[in-house]
Amino acid sequence: MIRYSRLVGALPAVVPFVPPEAFERRLGHAIRIRIGANESAFGPSPKAVAAINAGAARINWYCDPEGYELREALARHHGVARENIGLGIGADDLLGLIVRSTIDPGDPVAMSHGGYPTFAFHVAGFGGKFVTAPYRDFRNDASALADVAAKNDARLVYLSNPDNPTGSWLSIDEQKAVLARLPAGALLVLDEAYSDFAPTGSLPPLDPDDERVVHIRTFSKAHGMAGARVGYAIGAKGLIATFDKIRHHFGVTRLSQEAALASLGDQEFITSVVARVEEGKRDYVALAESLGLKALPSATNFVAIDMGDGDRARRTLARLLDDESVFLRMPGVAPLDRLIRVTVGTKTERHGFAAALTRVLARN
Amino acid sequence: MIRYSRLVGALPAVVPFVPPEAFERRLGHAIRIRIGANESAFGPSPKAVAAINAGAARINWYCDPEGYELREALARHHGVARENIGLGIGADDLLGLIVRSTIDPGDPVAMSHGGYPTFAFHVAGFGGKFVTAPYRDFRNDASALADVAAKNDARLVYLSNPDNPTGSWLSIDEQKAVLARLPAGALLVLDEAYSDFAPTGSLPPLDPDDERVVHIRTFSKAHGMAGARVGYAIGAKGLIATFDKIRHHFGVTRLSQEAALASLGDQEFITSVVARVEEGKRDYVALAESLGLKALPSATNFVAIDMGDGDRARRTLARLLDDESVFLRMPGVAPLDRLIRVTVGTKTERHGFAAALTRVLARN
Repeated sequence: MIRYSRLVGALPAVVPFVPPEAFERRLGHAIRIRIGANESAFGPSPKAVAAINAGAARINWYCDPEGYELREALARHHGVARENIGLGIGADDLLGLIVRSTIDPGDPVAMSHGGYPTFAFHVAGFGGKFVTAPYRDFRNDASALADVAAKNDARLVYLSNPDNPTGSWLSIDEQKAVLARLPAGALLVLDEAYSDFAPTGSLPPLDPDDERVVHIRTFSKAHGMAGARVGYAIGAKGLIATFDKIRHHFGVTRLSQEAALASLGDQEFITSVVARVEEGKRDYVALAESLGLKALPSATNFVAIDMGDGDRARRTLARLLDDESVFLRMPGVAPLDRLIRVTVGTKTERHGFAAALTRVLARN
Repeated sequence: MIRYSRLVGALPAVVPFVPPEAFERRLGHAIRIRIGANESAFGPSPKAVAAINAGAARINWYCDPEGYELREALARHHGVARENIGLGIGADDLLGLIVRSTIDPGDPVAMSHGGYPTFAFHVAGFGGKFVTAPYRDFRNDASALADVAAKNDARLVYLSNPDNPTGSWLSIDEQKAVLARLPAGALLVLDEAYSDFAPTGSLPPLDPDDERVVHIRTFSKAHGMAGARVGYAIGAKGLIATFDKIRHHFGVTRLSQEAALASLGDQEFITSVVARVEEGKRDYVALAESLGLKALPSATNFVAIDMGDGDRARRTLARLLDDESVFLRMPGVAPLDRLIRVTVGTKTERHGFAAALTRVLARN
């Protein structure tokens, strides 16, 4: 037997997510409607696709590990310096880099109970100790989160805004209150993966001179590039430079960098995606109402529907998968486990989902 | 000031490699001949390019995090089980996973002095303590490596075979001798990135039931997919399953998985790449001889040329870059720093390099 490290040897054998492909292998056929992972139903920008086609024959070359062009473009886009932008292999990679950079085994990390599993995966992976605040009315409870962080001298405070898995959002003032009460030396991680869908007044302005905050963004959602793995952090230069000490420098692939650069230049596409997502969310709200259910307000590309209790939510999810071949996800822990989380699909997918959900509820 | 973790806070601000793109930004113009990073001059397989073009519009979907199809195909290719194959974001990612899985801060790690910088980067990043054996006649010294590992009770022993940066290789018996003397509970990491170019009798047979050995392979070299970041480990099921506890499950992009699968199915292409690389290496050997230099025997896609001493090697490298816009790399530490490392280029690139090197040596 080889000897494993203390941290990794003690970790349980869990993965953050079971993918739809694994369900397909279990079912023996393809998923019919894939609206469970908050993937964009509206694809990548045609400019991103063109960049990939143009670059495909050059994948024999490593990428630029400094991601210079993409970081320059992102810096211009956000009005910060290139040194304030750190690239990652998706937002998940950046969450891992942040945890590894700041957490020693046993250090407390504050987050809402039932928050993003991949952040929790990294915290566990580096031996962090969770201190959690419960969601309140299906929203992150800023005040309770600040309390639990202060009381435990948390080194990291994680806040997903707009929030996954509820779709809710906090006001700028609520977020400022968390920052004002941040323990000395701690870092506030604002996971803004859904920022493109956020309503006015919910995204705090970027202040890259403030070392206490890092913003995480991604090309996986509005840009429709989840499979390409491009995320970035906007933060103080010292923090971004710290990632260079440990990150996979060549990890964001050549084609992914090129596609992201092209997509960033296609803001018209992003605007149209956001509009189509808004339309889709209205459909889901109307569907929920027509079935006597409540859809939560959403600042993301998905809608959480309240099934009333966890058993009904789990049963509905299982029936949708097994009987209707519709892939959704839902939060794992109470009180969020009353929700099923439905990604905005294309119009066809939304109609298909409406019919499937109606049938499932009629039968159960 | 935010507080960094003990390990990361203490790391120096170094990166494993300066990329050619950084030199281009410094020079203010494009590199003319890029033969410094052992990228394949012969591109990716046309089947890989076709797979990318076919998949580009679907990057809005996450990849299969289990990499099921690619791992199945690799398992068949190597005659092992899918559970013996672990995917990584390039071989570099797997080296990081191995170090993190086995090393606690202060644990000894054995490698040749001057070996692969990215492995060293990960060992430093997780607090490992190097114990090294010097190269001997520009080859890994299997016996000295086994000695230093045994004497220090190393938990990891790293061996690059065929070797980067020398191009040399060890016999199967030499490698078996290292394994036979491996400390109890230790893991032997055989970095076989250049395995496609290896001569008969230099690659030990795969024995996935042997927990003490892990083999690292990559699509970056013969497959010409360095920019796509696909590597894999072949090892015991327990080790591969351990990576699942900590790896970036969605990290190998959708297009990269699809391209790798297509490339694996194009063995004819790989055979032709290997033949063209052999031809190129003969050119470099003849060039070195014609200039009164010695090219080392190579089992890789590059040739190390002995410049006689470190100053001459460094001067030659600098002049090739600044005066000729030719990008090479060379080992950083003695005694390997007498070498310059020349990747096999296309015929045109080889002619260009021959002329450039001849001019540089005539002037200096």
